Amino acid sequence: MQTVFFFGNGQADGSAQMKDVLGGKGANLHEMTRLGIPVPPGFTISATLCSPYLRERRLPDDLRSDVTTAVAQLESVTGRDLGGAEAPLLVSVRSGAPVSMPGMMDTILNLGLNDTTVEALAAQSANPAFAYDSYRRFAQMYGEVVFGLTAANEESPIEHATEELKRLRGVEREIDLDPADLAELVQTIKRVIHDETGKVFPDDPWEQLWGAVEAVFRSWNTKRAMAYRRAHHIGDAVGTAVNVVAMVYGNMGEDSGTGVVFTRNPSTGEPTLFGEFLPNAQGEDVVAGTRTPEPISAMTKIWPGIEGQLREMGRMLERHFRDVQDIEFTVERGKLYLLQTRGAKRSAQAAVRVAVDMVAEALLSEQDAVGRVDPDQLERLLHPTIDPDLEVDVLATGLPASPGAAVGRVVFDADTAAERGADGEPVILVRRETNPDDFHGMLAAEAILTERGGMTSHAAVVARGIGKACVAGCKEVHVDEAHRRFEVNGRMVAEDDWITIDGSSGRVIAGSVTLTAPAPGEHFEQLMQWADKFRMLRVRANADTPADAARAVEFGAEGIGLCRTEHMFFEEGRIEIVREMIVAKNLAGRRKALGRLLPIQRGDFVGLFRAMDGRPVTIRLLDPPLHEFLPKTDEEIKRLADTIGVGFEELRNFISVLTEVNPMLGHRGCRLGITFPEITEMQAEAIFEAACDVADDGIEVMPEVMVPLVGFAEEFDRQASVVRATAEQVFARRGRHVEYLLGTMIELPRAALTADKIAETAEFFSFGTNDLTQTTLGLSRDDAGRFLPAYVEFGIIPDNPFQTIDRDGVGALVETGIRLGRETNPKLKIGICGEHGGDPRSIRFFHEAGMNYVSCSPFRVPIARLAAAQAALKDAPAVSQV
Amino acid sequence: MQTVFFFGNGQADGSAQMKDVLGGKGANLHEMTRLGIPVPPGFTISATLCSPYLRERRLPDDLRSDVTTAVAQLESVTGRDLGGAEAPLLVSVRSGAPVSMPGMMDTILNLGLNDTTVEALAAQSANPAFAYDSYRRFAQMYGEVVFGLTAANEESPIEHATEELKRLRGVEREIDLDPADLAELVQTIKRVIHDETGKVFPDDPWEQLWGAVEAVFRSWNTKRAMAYRRAHHIGDAVGTAVNVVAMVYGNMGEDSGTGVVFTRNPSTGEPTLFGEFLPNAQGEDVVAGTRTPEPISAMTKIWPGIEGQLREMGRMLERHFRDVQDIEFTVERGKLYLLQTRGAKRSAQAAVRVAVDMVAEALLSEQDAVGRVDPDQLERLLHPTIDPDLEVDVLATGLPASPGAAVGRVVFDADTAAERGADGEPVILVRRETNPDDFHGMLAAEAILTERGGMTSHAAVVARGIGKACVAGCKEVHVDEAHRRFEVNGRMVAEDDWITIDGSSGRVIAGSVTLTAPAPGEHFEQLMQWADKFRMLRVRANADTPADAARAVEFGAEGIGLCRTEHMFFEEGRIEIVREMIVAKNLAGRRKALGRLLPIQRGDFVGLFRAMDGRPVTIRLLDPPLHEFLPKTDEEIKRLADTIGVGFEELRNFISVLTEVNPMLGHRGCRLGITFPEITEMQAEAIFEAACDVADDGIEVMPEVMVPLVGFAEEFDRQASVVRATAEQVFARRGRHVEYLLGTMIELPRAALTADKIAETAEFFSFGTNDLTQTTLGLSRDDAGRFLPAYVEFGIIPDNPFQTIDRDGVGALVETGIRLGRETNPKLKIGICGEHGGDPRSIRFFHEAGMNYVSCSPFRVPIARLAAAQAALKDAPAVSQV
Repeated sequence: MQTVFFFGNGQADGSAQMKDVLGGKGANLHEMTRLGIPVPPGFTISATLCSPYLRERRLPDDLRSDVTTAVAQLESVTGRDLGGAEAPLLVSVRSGAPVSMPGMMDTILNLGLNDTTVEALAAQSANPAFAYDSYRRFAQMYGEVVFGLTAANEESPIEHATEELKRLRGVEREIDLDPADLAELVQTIKRVIHDETGKVFPDDPWEQLWGAVEAVFRSWNTKRAMAYRRAHHIGDAVGTAVNVVAMVYGNMGEDSGTGVVFTRNPSTGEPTLFGEFLPNAQGEDVVAGTRTPEPISAMTKIWPGIEGQLREMGRMLERHFRDVQDIEFTVERGKLYLLQTRGAKRSAQAAVRVAVDMVAEALLSEQDAVGRVDPDQLERLLHPTIDPDLEVDVLATGLPASPGAAVGRVVFDADTAAERGADGEPVILVRRETNPDDFHGMLAAEAILTERGGMTSHAAVVARGIGKACVAGCKEVHVDEAHRRFEVNGRMVAEDDWITIDGSSGRVIAGSVTLTAPAPGEHFEQLMQWADKFRMLRVRANADTPADAARAVEFGAEGIGLCRTEHMFFEEGRIEIVREMIVAKNLAGRRKALGRLLPIQRGDFVGLFRAMDGRPVTIRLLDPPLHEFLPKTDEEIKRLADTIGVGFEELRNFISVLTEVNPMLGHRGCRLGITFPEITEMQAEAIFEAACDVADDGIEVMPEVMVPLVGFAEEFDRQASVVRATAEQVFARRGRHVEYLLGTMIELPRAALTADKIAETAEFFSFGTNDLTQTTLGLSRDDAGRFLPAYVEFGIIPDNPFQTIDRDGVGALVETGIRLGRETNPKLKIGICGEHGGDPRSIRFFHEAGMNYVSCSPFRVPIARLAAAQAALKDAPAVSQV
Repeated sequence: MQTVFFFGNGQADGSAQMKDVLGGKGANLHEMTRLGIPVPPGFTISATLCSPYLRERRLPDDLRSDVTTAVAQLESVTGRDLGGAEAPLLVSVRSGAPVSMPGMMDTILNLGLNDTTVEALAAQSANPAFAYDSYRRFAQMYGEVVFGLTAANEESPIEHATEELKRLRGVEREIDLDPADLAELVQTIKRVIHDETGKVFPDDPWEQLWGAVEAVFRSWNTKRAMAYRRAHHIGDAVGTAVNVVAMVYGNMGEDSGTGVVFTRNPSTGEPTLFGEFLPNAQGEDVVAGTRTPEPISAMTKIWPGIEGQLREMGRMLERHFRDVQDIEFTVERGKLYLLQTRGAKRSAQAAVRVAVDMVAEALLSEQDAVGRVDPDQLERLLHPTIDPDLEVDVLATGLPASPGAAVGRVVFDADTAAERGADGEPVILVRRETNPDDFHGMLAAEAILTERGGMTSHAAVVARGIGKACVAGCKEVHVDEAHRRFEVNGRMVAEDDWITIDGSSGRVIAGSVTLTAPAPGEHFEQLMQWADKFRMLRVRANADTPADAARAVEFGAEGIGLCRTEHMFFEEGRIEIVREMIVAKNLAGRRKALGRLLPIQRGDFVGLFRAMDGRPVTIRLLDPPLHEFLPKTDEEIKRLADTIGVGFEELRNFISVLTEVNPMLGHRGCRLGITFPEITEMQAEAIFEAACDVADDGIEVMPEVMVPLVGFAEEFDRQASVVRATAEQVFARRGRHVEYLLGTMIELPRAALTADKIAETAEFFSFGTNDLTQTTLGLSRDDAGRFLPAYVEFGIIPDNPFQTIDRDGVGALVETGIRLGRETNPKLKIGICGEHGGDPRSIRFFHEAGMNYVSCSPFRVPIARLAAAQAALKDAPAVSQV
């Protein structure tokens, strides 16, 4: 098997198809060579050698002769010799994995320099300072990368020596030292390497080369590279290739230079060349930031030919790779070399525009275009954002719990938020953690900030549901409710102070920052249209209010997959009635309170049905345990006791009796409806009366009533008969019939395991993957924060299972539930309304599992539409994006 | 299909094999007739007609002619006529289902009487009072059973009229009224029937008969019958047969009588005739209790012939049915009739003795004998009990949470219980509810009584585990800890008062009651030996202390299937160290505390290993969430803060941070070991050092280390490598190697679903069906009390799923886990250590699922041994028992 692949002189052993072997960078170098694009010659050592090397810590024997042959070829093509005293061959040794891992692994430049060859370079370039500075850089890089020389404290010994010398000579840059000083510095570096690592810097370029090749392989397993792979779901076995390429220099005079160019604008997607360059410079000068590069447009004036070539090559590469290219180039004495080309990382806006433009340019099919945009990225088009170039005063960073940015004045309780928010004032609700009592305040606030709680805490879940920005679990914030202020990293933020919340990055920013308005635009609409054409899954939204519902429709939702009726219970003026119902001593008392809730709920449903205008609306019957609606503090309990006219002690005792050890597994869901069928009756009556009201107005209406937390078919049957009987009564009274479906959540393992029985009466299933994950994994979403991060870090769990569905466990139950359900009723309508419904990787699973629809928060509807299309197209290639 | 079956004159259409059609009573009447035993003739209407009748509320058309034929046959055999004015045929109409439901359904006697036939009966019996009293009884019974006449208040109108008349006439019994009065009373009854129900009492015996037949069918669905079926797992579709039998009378003079006889003593099992009889009486006279029956032994003197016949027939029936018989008989003018025979209900002691004796008598095989004893009944042989005939002062009745009876003085806290219990004083710990902090007090007490909590509350589970009697959830008790007393139904019981607890019945009894000591005896030992011969499942015990372990071995345990190491943590002198470990600020602090725990744990394990003497001992690593070990009240927190030298506020805050929303699904099990591997290390070190210590003494030792709450194979792998590394270190240090197994609990749905992966490293599985039930059903054991009783009552769940395994849900996961585990490792050792391990019906499932062993609390080991044998023998017939 060939393990060394040469390229140069218009010919190449490899091609773009060989990414697995050559890595992304290598494959593209070979491909460019084949295309006749000027690329410095070189060779690639196969990535397939990486894993065996890391296991055995030695290179295979026959590699030596293959590399010797390749170097000989390189010498012949360049007319230079490795270690040659007159025309020395200098090379770069770079990593390059089959998947993009920018900056994660190591690179060595100027390899081949030693005390002899440096003189030749000095002579050839007529610039001894440049030659010795290159030598200095190479020695330092070699010490660090190959010998593992790292700074024990802030300043490395090499840097210390360098800084000393510059201070002594009164210069700012190394290149401004005189050659003798630089030569001396090289010797110092070599000495430091020996002192610190016990290793001797090799003068023999061959020895240099082997050391560098092994170091590049080893760099596959640096901490940051492993962390990057984990974060990006890249397998450890992939490995990196090694590219050995002849050096070219952009600092050979005013007819030389270096730069980076994008074939289209990576921020906006505009189809014009974009980038910058620096005459008489090397790449590092750009990085060091000591000189300001010029925009590509400025090139026309000084190097019109080069600019033309770049444009031409860019166009060629774009057509060839059918994607925007990010190209590194160097001009050495008037000759243009491309050092690298790769798919350009781009903003969400650019990703969408490029994909759509390229269809118009016949570069991509519509299917390709749909596959080219990362669904998660779309979110940025739908929320206000903070210009990434803006300098902001970051107070602290928490979890990016719900995307978007928002500006407002700080308030510390839900009532104040609701009051001032209702007056149109922008407020940001800051809480230690939120609970259902805070819902009205969250609704009125621009954004929510919490001190505690994870990505799936109450604050996070609700904020995503209602499309508010949220930073959760910001531990550096210490809320002092008593004094109405919070302390953060030694600073105090008081009520009424302005802050800005960036829910996409987790940043909490002091003051009011100017936001960039969301602008999905026409390209976005076009892309969504294509996605809708290809997807098989229907996409619904989880929405609890007419406003949510309207937004969901705007984002393309085809129905409501989950309306949580209890959210309606928390609103002001209602919670009191709900509490009265709960603490009622008997059925008569409960019925009385329920009677007052009925018209309110009916009104809610009328609003929802109208907003959805004939689209299906799935309404879940009451789900949370009743104690969630009751006050917690003595003060609140006292107030309630006064309102409803019972003793404080009695009420407190009642509440304490209702408290549960494990509320997640307690008296909730259909268990409530079975012990208190009058609640189910009231909700069913409200639903069907609302449906009749809306139908009376000539608007189509399609309610789907959903029973939560079913574990036994008999539970569903009992609740179903209550709902059906109520429906019949309402229809008889109203003299009209409304079509409706009656189904259940599948959110307990037992429900999935006995789905065949449940499907005998249920007309649809909606998988509640949040609770199904909690029960299948025995993992409380509220408590997992203490160990789940460690689990993800240790690699015990690949992903947070509340974000991306656990295929092996929860997924297996979902598949069982679908199989059993359809065995009983092949036409059973099946969807999912857990948070996973908005997660692209989970959506792929739901597509494969044969579901009919997913339901997610309104803002994630476009994401789900795109992800569903990609799942249907399957072969959608992965693209790397900003 | 034949639906009416005649028997009489030594011939019968049916037989004992036809229970499904004829019901138990009917089948035995047919069988006795075939055996030549004198049975009054009659016929049986098939039970298969019951369900259709209840559905359609009408009898099938062809039944009429079949019954007419049967009545004609009966008339011919008896020489009497239905409705005949001279020799009227009188019959009883009785229910009789295929499964025994004693007293649950209705019976009508003396059917055929009317104003004409009563005169014939009076003449024939030469006893007009008897004749009219029979008529009176029949009329009243008919009104109640057929027309549904029931008492609106305490006294029914019929009873009222009857009492009035008796008062007026100054007599005590109806039979003492003169015939004219009785005749008048009959007319009064008929009038009341008409007034109250609008129905007219039918004079036509045919009409009487049809009404009675339908009423018996209808009585299948009385409330009490339905409740009984639910409690005894009898299907609703079975139905009852109807037996129409010629009346015989035991009150025809001194050569007549009636009685009940058991072929062996139903209390002790002694093989002598046992029972009682009443000369010149009808069955009802025995029930009324106005005359005292005489023991069967007294019969020899007055009716030696009858006594001989009874003995002979009893022996014949016992041989024929191969079971102790419970026989009803009537002697009419010197002629013996058997009215019914059935398998006798019997005490646990009798059940065991009869089964063993019958093997010696060659009536049963050993397999039969093993199948003849209800495993659950055995428990009564193993605990002290209260003589059921003893009159006791019952204060209240709670849940029979852990069997056995105990006497002691009331104490209200665990410390007092521990202190006084250690001094040998019998105390009973009374708590609102217990928590792990109370463990040392529970250990020292004779019994535990709690106000709150169900059959699976902490108190109940722990009490069963350590073999203490416990009455839980006794709501009538109101504990007033402050005043050290409890109020119960208006009475006060103070600290130091004597009470008696009957954990088998749930009774809380005032004062000190004399208990009957447990006496399993030689018959029990013999039966257990046979059970051990036939069973496939091995039986282990859940035991945490050497004392538990010793008891378990005594009861025949073949190993320990679950040692909960955390129970050891709660003992005095340890909990302080555990708390210090938990609140330690860093690894060093935790290690320091763990270092002090190590020798204590090692000592525990040495004791266990010695007690088990070479039998396998499964030790579960730390399982409960750490906050369970921490104090809850401010006072306790203050004390701990002082002890360990931290601020009160700081400690309270720390504890509040550790508190979890759903501790069942929180930071516990192997999640602790993964975040704090030093705890696993300490426990492993203690286990292996103890194993070496014991092995050094020449005692065999077989530890099985068990990792709890595994959901991901990687969790197990990580913990396994910590345990293995520790083992190797200990073995190296001690210079010896001890064989051990390393396995896991399967107690999360995900573990069962990914068992193939877990089995790659795990050497055994132990299904933790308690937690598996909680997660699969999404049902917190601690919170389910609020709705689970309603669920069982409504028939949503057939059984409490924490007592008997839920086959369809949890069972499906158990089967999946076993299948996947054995796919990876066909020799995988698989057991179960949840509470279901001691439940006979669950054990049958575990046997069928192919497990290797069950583990249960020590006292349930014999039950498990017997149940496992029955499961292996499978065909074990069901026997009805006391």
